[in-house]
Amino acid sequence: MLNYKVIFKIIGFLLILDGLFMFAGIPFSLYYNDNDVFTLLACGAGTSLIGLVTFYLTRNTDKEIRKREGYIVVSLGWVAMSIFGALPFVIHGSIPNYTDAFFETMSGFTTTGASILNDIESLPHGLLLWRSLTQWIGGMGIIVLSLAILPILGIGGMQMFAAEVPGPTKDKIHPRVRETAKRLWGIYLLFTLLEVFLLMLGGMNFFDSINHSFTTMATGGFSTKQASIAHYQSPYIHYIIIIFMFIAGTNFTLHYHILHGKISVLSKNAEFKFYLKIVIVAALAVSTALIVMNIYGVEKSFRDSLFQVVSIITTTGFITADYEIWGSFFQVFFFLLLFVGGCAGSTGGGIKVVRHYLLVKNGFSELRRLIHPRAVIPVRYNNQSVPNEIISNVMAFFLFYIFIFVIGTMVMSLVGLDFLSAMGSVATSIGNVGPAIGSVGPSFNFSHIPDFGKWFLSFLMLMGRLELFTVLLIFSPAFWKS
Amino acid sequence: MLNYKVIFKIIGFLLILDGLFMFAGIPFSLYYNDNDVFTLLACGAGTSLIGLVTFYLTRNTDKEIRKREGYIVVSLGWVAMSIFGALPFVIHGSIPNYTDAFFETMSGFTTTGASILNDIESLPHGLLLWRSLTQWIGGMGIIVLSLAILPILGIGGMQMFAAEVPGPTKDKIHPRVRETAKRLWGIYLLFTLLEVFLLMLGGMNFFDSINHSFTTMATGGFSTKQASIAHYQSPYIHYIIIIFMFIAGTNFTLHYHILHGKISVLSKNAEFKFYLKIVIVAALAVSTALIVMNIYGVEKSFRDSLFQVVSIITTTGFITADYEIWGSFFQVFFFLLLFVGGCAGSTGGGIKVVRHYLLVKNGFSELRRLIHPRAVIPVRYNNQSVPNEIISNVMAFFLFYIFIFVIGTMVMSLVGLDFLSAMGSVATSIGNVGPAIGSVGPSFNFSHIPDFGKWFLSFLMLMGRLELFTVLLIFSPAFWKS
Repeated sequence: MLNYKVIFKIIGFLLILDGLFMFAGIPFSLYYNDNDVFTLLACGAGTSLIGLVTFYLTRNTDKEIRKREGYIVVSLGWVAMSIFGALPFVIHGSIPNYTDAFFETMSGFTTTGASILNDIESLPHGLLLWRSLTQWIGGMGIIVLSLAILPILGIGGMQMFAAEVPGPTKDKIHPRVRETAKRLWGIYLLFTLLEVFLLMLGGMNFFDSINHSFTTMATGGFSTKQASIAHYQSPYIHYIIIIFMFIAGTNFTLHYHILHGKISVLSKNAEFKFYLKIVIVAALAVSTALIVMNIYGVEKSFRDSLFQVVSIITTTGFITADYEIWGSFFQVFFFLLLFVGGCAGSTGGGIKVVRHYLLVKNGFSELRRLIHPRAVIPVRYNNQSVPNEIISNVMAFFLFYIFIFVIGTMVMSLVGLDFLSAMGSVATSIGNVGPAIGSVGPSFNFSHIPDFGKWFLSFLMLMGRLELFTVLLIFSPAFWKS
Repeated sequence: MLNYKVIFKIIGFLLILDGLFMFAGIPFSLYYNDNDVFTLLACGAGTSLIGLVTFYLTRNTDKEIRKREGYIVVSLGWVAMSIFGALPFVIHGSIPNYTDAFFETMSGFTTTGASILNDIESLPHGLLLWRSLTQWIGGMGIIVLSLAILPILGIGGMQMFAAEVPGPTKDKIHPRVRETAKRLWGIYLLFTLLEVFLLMLGGMNFFDSINHSFTTMATGGFSTKQASIAHYQSPYIHYIIIIFMFIAGTNFTLHYHILHGKISVLSKNAEFKFYLKIVIVAALAVSTALIVMNIYGVEKSFRDSLFQVVSIITTTGFITADYEIWGSFFQVFFFLLLFVGGCAGSTGGGIKVVRHYLLVKNGFSELRRLIHPRAVIPVRYNNQSVPNEIISNVMAFFLFYIFIFVIGTMVMSLVGLDFLSAMGSVATSIGNVGPAIGSVGPSFNFSHIPDFGKWFLSFLMLMGRLELFTVLLIFSPAFWKS
């Protein structure tokens, strides 16, 4: 029997936080004299109150939760926060359609960054901050989820990479989550503040610096400007954001070790080295092509290439140039980058670098196994043999990812999107990236997609963010048996 | 050390056959008074002679070959036959460019069916028959390859399905190949003759019936008409070809058992049942959509749906209607069907139904493993547990397939194709189908593709036909180390 009480208790707790965070934008709205103060106050208070009542009604329950309740809490938590998080946009009227508001909020909490807004600058500051904050909260959630909760739930073959997380390794979720959360959130906060400071040094105002820092560190990609980072001309700002996107796409346990003086972890970590290689090779390929095509100068070619490559690989989704107008090859190339994803234990989404690494290594092993059928040829990661079950799980993850991408593309083509836009919208949603190709490319947004499509893409964002299996399990009959 | 002599000896033998088969079209050319008699005589004699000399020079060698030589013979055999098979087209002048002729011939021998011809009816009958015959020979080759040779070479996780092939199971390739070949080629010939007879009953002339029967049974799809099967108005002809495409896409060992009275094998074979289900579900989906759209009448909607679905799934590639003009959803849907493929042990290409079956079953098992981490949950096929190594191999095959598809799409976009056409040309080449989407859709052909692209696609056809690993192995460094 599932312990529904503990599920509701945690959801209640999350809603209390959800509501409290809505207040965060109020000082800005007061300062800029915006008209959304009452909306934020009312929605924040209402959401917190509902959370408080839920929490109170379910207070008499054991605080330990088991795996099956864990899956449900994790999935429902994101949904509940988005359901309530969408309210300020609707009640204020800046996003009158609830479907649009839910899409935008789910896109926020999942750190996707796909938007339906056609005039971002017209929103009041409080709502803009709330929008950016959904991503920052989502990023916090994902760090704890990927480094503390999912490994315990056995999701996504990440068990062995989670072993590197500092903190006690117990079977019970509660103490471990708290311990890990405290250490990693400190790092998250530190980088966010550092980015705010550096962006302000480059001439970005305080409000925009905070917003962009929130959405950079979350690899979210919401901007306070309709033109995204292309709004800013300063190469300095572009480079700062490139650096922080790259940091946000790195495993936070590496940051933890580096900040404790163990810089050698970088050169020992196979995933990080592969991540660095992918970024360098992709950026060099794109910038070489751009320089040869001679559209921009050398520096701008390099910067635009690096920015777009890092932005898409880390699944941030900021934009300084539209790769679609560069030609067919770039369209294919950036579409493929939608599938890379950040490192495990980062705020990035997508398939994740470590999975690609293991798949490539296993591919070579498979060829060697054909030549030497009797030899035992394990896949090695960080000088350790990777157990077969993990390789199987990683391959199954990849196949599910492709499967959902394929089904999703069919659904979006039925909704009325052309082939490329259907593929792009699905790949960017499940990968939690933001921009894609076709009618959802960097120069466009998601406002033109029919309502059903928006709900469907929101669901894909959730699936992608929760490493597929969390959501897939809940929909599998085996989960509900006994 | 590789025994190069035995490799050349077998290639020599294949070239003798290659040359002799070229003579087959001569009676037709004489009858129709065509101008290609001398070309066919000269090319046939020349090719046979070169084969004979090669065979003679390498006669003093052991006739047993080992695995590593097997991989090379299989790959080089297809290449050598295409290199010489292309000559009649060039020497006669109907395909003046050798790249085009090689593409057409490789497309023949790999039973792909992609064509560069813009006016098929202008070719003399002898060359047309040779063109169809390349597919029929390729089909013969593939039956033996997939049911007798590849299982011994350990390619593609097909070992356990090969166990059902009648005949002695020895480690030495030679006797087994001969035994299996004799039994299965009899069935192949029988079905071909039956189709010729039934097509002639429907009013198709003898020449066209032979050609279309050759290319149906090979799941090749070359037609003697520029408009493919759409040239024929007769629903009877359409239905006959649907039936024989379906037969050609079925495992030939099943046909062997059925012809020996064991009809029950059909209901016991999980792959066949899955194949049937995929065809039925896909055809119903497409025809329902077409009937709702009310473009054609009910019968024509059903027939066109069934024809195109069976043609693409079996990787034949005959066409009676252009699914691209039906809309975006159909474009996506038929593109996905390019990845299905026929049954193992059929003449069909692609990923193959049994692999999809195992992947789906393993997906469910993986979810159950997450819920019950300590339970052993094997994947079952035909009431047997499938060993883990086979599941791994099938997953690796699928991932290599996707990987090559992705790299191929990048290459073709660099060659200058738009995104959809790049994807389509690669998927249809590696899947050995024929038509695809975009500028290589059913209403177009491959003549507009730059030369480099044609060579590249020819290579993909070969890779796909040889179940990837055969060719991949030869390009892996581990293969050449002792």
